Amino acid sequence: MLLMEASLKTLDRAAAWKSYESVRRFTEELCEGLIPEDFVVQSMTDASPTKWHLAHTSWFYETFLLRELLADYQPLKPLYTFLFNSYYNAVGKMHERPKRGLLSRPSVDEVFQYRRHVDQAMRRLIQDASEDVLEKMTPVLLLGLNHEQQHQELILTDIKHVLAQNPLKPVFSTAPQTGRSEPPPADWIHYPGGVVDIGNDGEGFIFDNEGPRSRQFLEPFALSRTLVTCGDYLKFMEDGGYSRPEFWLSDGWALVQAEKWEAPLYWERSEDGWSAFTLHGMRPVDPGEPVCHVSYYEADAYAAWAGASLPTEAQWESAASAVPVEGNFVESRRYHPAPLAETLAAEHAPGRPLQMFGDVWEWTRSAYLPYHGYKPPAGAIGEYNGKFMSGQMTLRGGSCATSRSHIRLTYRNFFRPHHRWQFMGFRLVQDQ
Amino acid sequence: MLLMEASLKTLDRAAAWKSYESVRRFTEELCEGLIPEDFVVQSMTDASPTKWHLAHTSWFYETFLLRELLADYQPLKPLYTFLFNSYYNAVGKMHERPKRGLLSRPSVDEVFQYRRHVDQAMRRLIQDASEDVLEKMTPVLLLGLNHEQQHQELILTDIKHVLAQNPLKPVFSTAPQTGRSEPPPADWIHYPGGVVDIGNDGEGFIFDNEGPRSRQFLEPFALSRTLVTCGDYLKFMEDGGYSRPEFWLSDGWALVQAEKWEAPLYWERSEDGWSAFTLHGMRPVDPGEPVCHVSYYEADAYAAWAGASLPTEAQWESAASAVPVEGNFVESRRYHPAPLAETLAAEHAPGRPLQMFGDVWEWTRSAYLPYHGYKPPAGAIGEYNGKFMSGQMTLRGGSCATSRSHIRLTYRNFFRPHHRWQFMGFRLVQDQ
Amino acid sequence: MLLMEASLKTLDRAAAWKSYESVRRFTEELCEGLIPEDFVVQSMTDASPTKWHLAHTSWFYETFLLRELLADYQPLKPLYTFLFNSYYNAVGKMHERPKRGLLSRPSVDEVFQYRRHVDQAMRRLIQDASEDVLEKMTPVLLLGLNHEQQHQELILTDIKHVLAQNPLKPVFSTAPQTGRSEPPPADWIHYPGGVVDIGNDGEGFIFDNEGPRSRQFLEPFALSRTLVTCGDYLKFMEDGGYSRPEFWLSDGWALVQAEKWEAPLYWERSEDGWSAFTLHGMRPVDPGEPVCHVSYYEADAYAAWAGASLPTEAQWESAASAVPVEGNFVESRRYHPAPLAETLAAEHAPGRPLQMFGDVWEWTRSAYLPYHGYKPPAGAIGEYNGKFMSGQMTLRGGSCATSRSHIRLTYRNFFRPHHRWQFMGFRLVQDQ
Amino acid sequence: MLLMEASLKTLDRAAAWKSYESVRRFTEELCEGLIPEDFVVQSMTDASPTKWHLAHTSWFYETFLLRELLADYQPLKPLYTFLFNSYYNAVGKMHERPKRGLLSRPSVDEVFQYRRHVDQAMRRLIQDASEDVLEKMTPVLLLGLNHEQQHQELILTDIKHVLAQNPLKPVFSTAPQTGRSEPPPADWIHYPGGVVDIGNDGEGFIFDNEGPRSRQFLEPFALSRTLVTCGDYLKFMEDGGYSRPEFWLSDGWALVQAEKWEAPLYWERSEDGWSAFTLHGMRPVDPGEPVCHVSYYEADAYAAWAGASLPTEAQWESAASAVPVEGNFVESRRYHPAPLAETLAAEHAPGRPLQMFGDVWEWTRSAYLPYHGYKPPAGAIGEYNGKFMSGQMTLRGGSCATSRSHIRLTYRNFFRPHHRWQFMGFRLVQDQ
Repeated sequence: MLLMEASLKTLDRAAAWKSYESVRRFTEELCEGLIPEDFVVQSMTDASPTKWHLAHTSWFYETFLLRELLADYQPLKPLYTFLFNSYYNAVGKMHERPKRGLLSRPSVDEVFQYRRHVDQAMRRLIQDASEDVLEKMTPVLLLGLNHEQQHQELILTDIKHVLAQNPLKPVFSTAPQTGRSEPPPADWIHYPGGVVDIGNDGEGFIFDNEGPRSRQFLEPFALSRTLVTCGDYLKFMEDGGYSRPEFWLSDGWALVQAEKWEAPLYWERSEDGWSAFTLHGMRPVDPGEPVCHVSYYEADAYAAWAGASLPTEAQWESAASAVPVEGNFVESRRYHPAPLAETLAAEHAPGRPLQMFGDVWEWTRSAYLPYHGYKPPAGAIGEYNGKFMSGQMTLRGGSCATSRSHIRLTYRNFFRPHHRWQFMGFRLVQDQ
Repeated sequence: MLLMEASLKTLDRAAAWKSYESVRRFTEELCEGLIPEDFVVQSMTDASPTKWHLAHTSWFYETFLLRELLADYQPLKPLYTFLFNSYYNAVGKMHERPKRGLLSRPSVDEVFQYRRHVDQAMRRLIQDASEDVLEKMTPVLLLGLNHEQQHQELILTDIKHVLAQNPLKPVFSTAPQTGRSEPPPADWIHYPGGVVDIGNDGEGFIFDNEGPRSRQFLEPFALSRTLVTCGDYLKFMEDGGYSRPEFWLSDGWALVQAEKWEAPLYWERSEDGWSAFTLHGMRPVDPGEPVCHVSYYEADAYAAWAGASLPTEAQWESAASAVPVEGNFVESRRYHPAPLAETLAAEHAPGRPLQMFGDVWEWTRSAYLPYHGYKPPAGAIGEYNGKFMSGQMTLRGGSCATSRSHIRLTYRNFFRPHHRWQFMGFRLVQDQ
Repeated sequence: MLLMEASLKTLDRAAAWKSYESVRRFTEELCEGLIPEDFVVQSMTDASPTKWHLAHTSWFYETFLLRELLADYQPLKPLYTFLFNSYYNAVGKMHERPKRGLLSRPSVDEVFQYRRHVDQAMRRLIQDASEDVLEKMTPVLLLGLNHEQQHQELILTDIKHVLAQNPLKPVFSTAPQTGRSEPPPADWIHYPGGVVDIGNDGEGFIFDNEGPRSRQFLEPFALSRTLVTCGDYLKFMEDGGYSRPEFWLSDGWALVQAEKWEAPLYWERSEDGWSAFTLHGMRPVDPGEPVCHVSYYEADAYAAWAGASLPTEAQWESAASAVPVEGNFVESRRYHPAPLAETLAAEHAPGRPLQMFGDVWEWTRSAYLPYHGYKPPAGAIGEYNGKFMSGQMTLRGGSCATSRSHIRLTYRNFFRPHHRWQFMGFRLVQDQ
Repeated sequence: MLLMEASLKTLDRAAAWKSYESVRRFTEELCEGLIPEDFVVQSMTDASPTKWHLAHTSWFYETFLLRELLADYQPLKPLYTFLFNSYYNAVGKMHERPKRGLLSRPSVDEVFQYRRHVDQAMRRLIQDASEDVLEKMTPVLLLGLNHEQQHQELILTDIKHVLAQNPLKPVFSTAPQTGRSEPPPADWIHYPGGVVDIGNDGEGFIFDNEGPRSRQFLEPFALSRTLVTCGDYLKFMEDGGYSRPEFWLSDGWALVQAEKWEAPLYWERSEDGWSAFTLHGMRPVDPGEPVCHVSYYEADAYAAWAGASLPTEAQWESAASAVPVEGNFVESRRYHPAPLAETLAAEHAPGRPLQMFGDVWEWTRSAYLPYHGYKPPAGAIGEYNGKFMSGQMTLRGGSCATSRSHIRLTYRNFFRPHHRWQFMGFRLVQDQ
């Protein structure tokens, strides 16, 4: 996708529309296997109905571009302003998040009509805007497209959660059954540390939370070449990982006991061993795949058991800076992390860490906090990232549900330490 | 519907099938205005998705008739046994009630296929059963049909609750706008009391909780000829009804404060006065209509304010025994209580209480408890009524969402005292 | 205690003071074994700290007598009006019930000073009141004394609950260890029913909820001569009582599962069988004692298991009308139900039901609802009983923690069906 | 206190005992104004009863020294091991934290007996230990003393919370009423940044979480010379601070709305303006005092309003390294932060930040996370700090409830971002 890679100055109308159309179309392609009933359900407060994602991403352009810059724009339904506002207090009141699953209307068809309505207006805006307006809209349009890409990922993770609650275990997309693969031997890559530049001042599009670029000092460290695999993780489980408090953060241990956790999310014990619910239905756990759907607490407990740590954001970013941004992204339509064996075979960067991008978001041991000198932008857009800098941990590298054009070296994702429903995994670090 | 009125002995196959088909068809007719998305939502734990009602009523015949009596019966999907069991522990485990809204599958189409599957098997069973089997199945079939009629009412009250949560205020069925009507003057009808027979030993179909018939002594009392109207209730509200604890039961007052109740469910204050959400959308409150969607607590508080009481079950039944079972039932497709003026015009029983049947279920001041000598039937069917005889109050007379063929003088409905989402109203009594 | 038995007309000042002094002294005697720390703890919202009971009972006289009738009365501390109001909205705001255990002050000493302050004023009031005032105060004084007697019982049951939470299992009062006794054989007493008078129009003191006296019709029934014993109850437990849903009310079964109940409150399983916490510390369960600390749900489940029912209030009262009001009350200082063998030996009424009064409150299957014609008194005093007529079941007969002078044939106690911390047991009935 | 400053090698028995005795005595001195009832109450789950603190600090020596090193040690009561374990899973099960306030026993006297019992054994251990044992016990003894000092602070903050719940507003200690003081003008001190050493490798006693010492790079920054005062904070409040979401972290704003916060903890609005509950009772808010009892969310919102930030731990430590560790500590018996004017008058370090140590713990914008290379110690002691490194923010510098001998430049305190009941305040930083 050219737009994402372009510097903001070189944007032209054709490229803008092409990018817009392409992002919008991909969102809808992801929903192709769903029936109307699937679009409605909200399986937990953290997740949203598919229908809501489709509407909210449209609301974003409507609110921050069409209402601001397209003089004669007529909203389709005034109440949508309220219904599809996620969390922008500066825009006005909003429908309560936990109640998104109570709305059977607008219908799926009406939501697609809303998308068409916004698309047509966006087409007019992009075609007809004066140069001044075009310049003004460009950063917001880029933000809107990246925003929609984030919701594409959420559409997948949220519908996975919905389907997993269903004892019928519905299949989202069919895929060839993969065999059992073997994880490669552990391997550590050493880094000397020193003063490094972290963050991004943004020649192309970046989120505000990726900057400002500033210096950090790193002590020497060694990073695991590979992600922790299901095979590795099963050893932790077999060694009593979920029943020995000595490995766990206090909050994590409380949760393990309260929720009776004994495996990653979506794993189920059967007579033949562990299976896991995937977007292709229930499948036996493959020991050679990266472990996925683990919380920060589980990742941290595993690291304690293994005598290691999770990397800091700065360690991860410093190591990843030498790795090309390639891997198993959503474009592969695999919707699941790939086995290490396969990755090894198609190695992107010999001698460097594997699967740093794509497959699974990697938990770091860094809290999601502002970089030195960070200030959120003025206005409602300032609520995008900054106000969530509390109570969350940072993840890096994108997953099998992330668009290739969406991810960057400096990209900071963030979730609460108990969250597991994203494609989340981890690798280890040894502080030297 | 002949079947319901027939004594069990005279049942013939044709009548059985005709009744079955008619009840089944009516359930589906009620869903005609809905889109697939509407069938999915569970707006609160007390309510169920439409889809679930459609499936559960089929499950009932499958579980208690087809699996028992139709030798070669093949269930459509084994998991439906689990998914659509409501609360019959003796049948096995069940999907948790609060999670009914998490199931996007089976789809609405698949649920209708399930209905067809059960219907075809039921047709075979009714046609081919030996006389012995026919005799055995008759009471269960009658129970199943009455069960489905109960769920027809719940389909209406539950979808009303779903639609009411939606700021778009969708319309379930269109209806001519009614004007403002005037309530008639209050009028009391006096009853001498004495030893009366209460309950029903069932020549035709009855629920087990309606019997055994036994004697009760009633002191003299006077019953209000009319239901309490919205106009009456507005006077209570204007006199500080919702802010004066002296009228309220302690539990009710706690709820009023916790939930900030200040009017019946579905009422909203606007600049022009009070409106209410109905199955025809938002409408101004009509003072001449029976007040509806009030809890027992509100009914009791109103009675205290008015210096009266709610009737006991025995008072109600004794008074109603002289009133024909006629009124505004679901067959009218009005889906809303009728104004008193209209009822007066078409008076069923001159000099007798009005609107005793249909319109709104009437709260009594009797707890839902077993009659003298009551024993629940053996087996899973015994869980139908008996195990709920705790924490609930009894309501009488049916509502505008009840089938005419479903209601009887001795019919006992029961809900918790805080419930409001059924078509619930009340009338007053004066103990002499 | 003469006062309680006297008709209100014959009250004289000396008797009034003697009764007052005697009730007040007994409250304090019950606290003699406690250390200051014991007076502070509130172990659950349903219970109150001892300190609070001591103060609230004083507040009652202060609020309803001294402030009303003693012209120059000076409250000790104005804030006590707020702190020690239990639930009288008409008196004003009150300290929230669940926060009673957060108050370390006033100290126990200060609470006793408050009692002295009120006592001295009460002495003045009783001595100096004009005849008019005396007549006016008499029913309120009687109510206050009965109120304090109710709190005496709560002091015992609440401190029992406090001490039971403590792994140190402190002893409230020492008592000789009793041996294992044998329950007598089951025995049913038959009653013919008919129109009976129930309730009390009160020649002596009664609570408002005991009247008006009115007629009820009873069908024939048989009442168990004895209370259900621990030995009986153990058979129910051994037959899977707590794991078989078929015996349970739906609400009860939900509670059994949520709370993991498997025995009466205070019972603990040890290697030597079941023990129970009593006010004398932990003791082996005696099979010949009435079972105690069971909820309505457990009593009802036991009855279902035994093929019987709990009596209605009217059945109980009708049967008890032939039994003298004698038994094991708080004056025995046993603070625990007595074995049946002992009661048999000292049989109060040959051929009649045993232990109808004292020992344990007996659950009935009657909800706590108003009698025909009941109206609560005007004013704050009207909040005493009437507003609780929702969600509760009635118990009869008093317990080993009740004063002999406090109980009557028509006395109606009431608790929620899940409550267990009172001395609660039950007997069975067979509807004929 | 010599011990704390000594290197571990030079410890001698006399100094050890003197330190032990002194810490133990000070704990008890803090309780001198309390009545037995005060020792019992647990006002929230985060806080513990005074009695529990007195016992738990003794349990610590008993568990980690006496049971390990004193051969013939006899515990006073075996159950105390269970009752007074705070959170050490490796030691065994423990009494649930939220239930600490349910224990009226052991009595306050028995708890003091327990302290005497431990003290006598500790005296024997210190006097009689072999040199080997002495060496082994030294770090644990130092940890135990520092542990008890932490609980001294908690005794003050927890009893403040208990007394504040009480409408009687009891006074913990009397103090002369202070007047209204004026805050000094704002002033920023500039720091050049660069590679700095952060943390402590511990020549004297340190907590494990203070190390290992490692390098960090700081960009240039400016630190406020003074703490934010009540006067400053009132301006934020008057500018709509608590009603404008744009200043708040999302979690913070949700809390402000849910809890209806509109001022710091313990502040109450009266006709004459704001007052605050202090350990000396209710007092008018002094604008010249550091603001106290604010959460991280409030500190962060104030910083956003002021166009600044909270310092990072590294910024704070780097700036504080030039400031002597002097200030208003618990030894002053003021139990409240001092006005800035007073501090200015007794300025410890001209031209340097004021009140860096003592008065109030200062919120930083750093999450409480391990330093590079941190590993918790082996065994139960390893649970002391490491397992809490999740969900908490770091605070620095000690407060008016901290012992002078307890605090250090590198000391890291940590609380959840919503916590307010410690003496918590903040100062601002400007990233350059």
